[in-house]
Amino acid sequence: MPEKRKLHLNAFLMSVGHHEASWRLPESDPYAGWSVKHYQELARIAERGRLDSLFLADSPVQQGDPGRRPTGKLEPTVLLTALAGVTSRIGLIATASTSYNEPYNLARRFSSLDHISDGRAGWNIVTTAGADAARNFGLDDVPLHRERYERADEFLEVATKLWDSWADDAVLADKDAGVHADAAKVRAINHRGRYFRVDGPLNVPRSPQGWPLLVQAGSSEDGRDFAAKWAEAVFTAQQTLAEGRAFYRDLKQRAAALGRDPDGVKILPGIVPVIGDTAAEARELDAELERLISPEYARAQLAERFHLTPADLPLDEPLPDNLPTEDQIEGAKSRFTLIVDLARRENLTVRQLIGRLGGGRGHRTFAGTPSQVADTIEEWFDSGAADGFNIMPAVLPSGLVAFVDKVVPILQERGRFRTEYEGATLREHYGLPRPAATSFAYHPELITQ
Amino acid sequence: MPEKRKLHLNAFLMSVGHHEASWRLPESDPYAGWSVKHYQELARIAERGRLDSLFLADSPVQQGDPGRRPTGKLEPTVLLTALAGVTSRIGLIATASTSYNEPYNLARRFSSLDHISDGRAGWNIVTTAGADAARNFGLDDVPLHRERYERADEFLEVATKLWDSWADDAVLADKDAGVHADAAKVRAINHRGRYFRVDGPLNVPRSPQGWPLLVQAGSSEDGRDFAAKWAEAVFTAQQTLAEGRAFYRDLKQRAAALGRDPDGVKILPGIVPVIGDTAAEARELDAELERLISPEYARAQLAERFHLTPADLPLDEPLPDNLPTEDQIEGAKSRFTLIVDLARRENLTVRQLIGRLGGGRGHRTFAGTPSQVADTIEEWFDSGAADGFNIMPAVLPSGLVAFVDKVVPILQERGRFRTEYEGATLREHYGLPRPAATSFAYHPELITQ
Repeated sequence: MPEKRKLHLNAFLMSVGHHEASWRLPESDPYAGWSVKHYQELARIAERGRLDSLFLADSPVQQGDPGRRPTGKLEPTVLLTALAGVTSRIGLIATASTSYNEPYNLARRFSSLDHISDGRAGWNIVTTAGADAARNFGLDDVPLHRERYERADEFLEVATKLWDSWADDAVLADKDAGVHADAAKVRAINHRGRYFRVDGPLNVPRSPQGWPLLVQAGSSEDGRDFAAKWAEAVFTAQQTLAEGRAFYRDLKQRAAALGRDPDGVKILPGIVPVIGDTAAEARELDAELERLISPEYARAQLAERFHLTPADLPLDEPLPDNLPTEDQIEGAKSRFTLIVDLARRENLTVRQLIGRLGGGRGHRTFAGTPSQVADTIEEWFDSGAADGFNIMPAVLPSGLVAFVDKVVPILQERGRFRTEYEGATLREHYGLPRPAATSFAYHPELITQ
Repeated sequence: MPEKRKLHLNAFLMSVGHHEASWRLPESDPYAGWSVKHYQELARIAERGRLDSLFLADSPVQQGDPGRRPTGKLEPTVLLTALAGVTSRIGLIATASTSYNEPYNLARRFSSLDHISDGRAGWNIVTTAGADAARNFGLDDVPLHRERYERADEFLEVATKLWDSWADDAVLADKDAGVHADAAKVRAINHRGRYFRVDGPLNVPRSPQGWPLLVQAGSSEDGRDFAAKWAEAVFTAQQTLAEGRAFYRDLKQRAAALGRDPDGVKILPGIVPVIGDTAAEARELDAELERLISPEYARAQLAERFHLTPADLPLDEPLPDNLPTEDQIEGAKSRFTLIVDLARRENLTVRQLIGRLGGGRGHRTFAGTPSQVADTIEEWFDSGAADGFNIMPAVLPSGLVAFVDKVVPILQERGRFRTEYEGATLREHYGLPRPAATSFAYHPELITQ
């Protein structure tokens, strides 16, 4: 009998909550977005719930109008290092861009985080959409979508070679002979590619997990191909069960077509749970958050996404017909389509659409009781739409407390979720293997040279 | 009456000690170089001694033969974040390269560290010598010395603009009005220079110190000019009191010539104390460490530094005459000259020179009793060769324990060193001001546009 599938749950941490108006609630500290103490409290709560990992999104750019919501963000590899210090088992997944980093530096930071956390590091690999980010790095505009993914592919090739450049048994520590490490097992990588030339080796011994867990979050065609090749976990935004199942099936098939075990790629949609002890209480919190949205900020952002001006989007009318198509969008392609589909499917006005996006920026919001939240998680898990979820509380810390103290126990009672950590590393939480460091050839079929 | 000058002491942490053979001692853990627990222990010891800061050197390259000594190193901004978590007052100075980083990313990491540590971050700015580092970043050879410093200068211009891109009072947190930050006080920097084009603003609010403490460690002509312009503390290697005084005077004069207060630039030579309860005991430890050196590794490194082969350097003969001159060296220029001068002045054989460099790679080694170490520190401090020292224990942790528990109390008794932290931030420990964020103009005369 095959082992029972395990449910995986990450805590996606963001300031005082994923809802854009959460900071306006009386309970919220509007300075918490860059407070390590706030994040440490969240980390302890999530570990108390035995969640698989903490997850931090990122982009190297000031995102959106600073008036709208807390926009300042600490750099994730640094912040997660601080969270490693107050936790002992939970995984630590940092988002970092392949377009605006050098592989040597980034591979080294993830290796360092993996050493410091005793094997709990994960990397959410993004290619970073948006001309505004590009203009922080000497470019006039964002590189083409396909080019960003080509660079990402080569970036991963370099990073994995660097992580494997010290053999697991390179350090001899032979005090008598006076030989610290076997120089033959600390190898140059001499990478020569289209985007990168990197001699190596890395200047950090191989880390507890070998490689950080590789996570990916783009759902465009290029993004799916990249995920099928490299990702061990995929974060995705899916509004309906049918779409979720289609995405799940598609990505597992793409991985299988490349010769990978489909179980080696975990699919984790985002969900914004708004939890109340009664359904009415949950709806009330949801409505209060929606009331606190200032629609002008969101309208300006929507207009930018659609290549329009705010005046083109009257608040109480449906989306206009003259929207661009996905292939005219350079980045966040699948999110664009999701938003347009959502508005058209439910015939939403711009104001209503803004309300629907306020919670999770396109991720599914679900308001309900703890058992209703547990039900929808089980339904998606059982019907082949998810291997788990990226939990995105609308309000933090209270929404995470509610999830951990009220939803997790139900999932544990139902035998769906661990009651104790069984492994020590993030890879062990996900049931994923530690890559071997044999001549840079964990995926020999995927290394192009 | 002017306030009495204050002595400043940093703990320069490096694996199990600065002496290349320290890892071979019975007491040393040869795996400690990448163990966060080891560094956390060192951090607690240094804070117990009320030292100004912890300091980590760095280069983004595997340095030297991995057989020789522990070479693996965790990335400093990440490691210092972990050390921030187990300390509350001591400063945290990370070395990072302006040649192989992007200003947006690095400025953000230092801002993040400064937030996380409540104002204890410092940046040791280096331009990174060596073709081997260059070849980890797509280059065939290291950029010219002068070009690296030109880039460093512009890098600092960009970084300081980014740190100042959020006004100190930008965040309004006005829940009633629904305005989180004043968008007019979160300003693009629109930097357009020779090396960088960066729009900004940074995506982190201004940090407790405004800017991290700016530290610099190059002593070449270009390095001194750069330090005079930007540095608030200068680490330097000086073998003799006379050289130390000349360097001190020169750098203070250069700073004054640029209109800066010379007291705003602290000069901190490195010293490798080898401490014994008696002078004989100290000499014995020194001799034991020297016996444990495998000279072949050091000879190969010397040969590379001199553009020679190891066979050109017979161990029991003096340095040959046919050495290059400083202007033929592309990096670590002043260290090159220091080593040649040391060998010639004391008429050392190659083997003896290797022994002298084994402790501190050119920094002054001083073996003695606690009061002899305190005496030499006072002598340099009083005779205008130092505002303090970068303490580089030959063996760690034992050498740091000896310094903190035996030398520091003598300096405190003599009224030379603080008995309690008086300030909260690293700038306060150094008696240096927090830069204002007024229209990017802390040094208006230095900003070229």
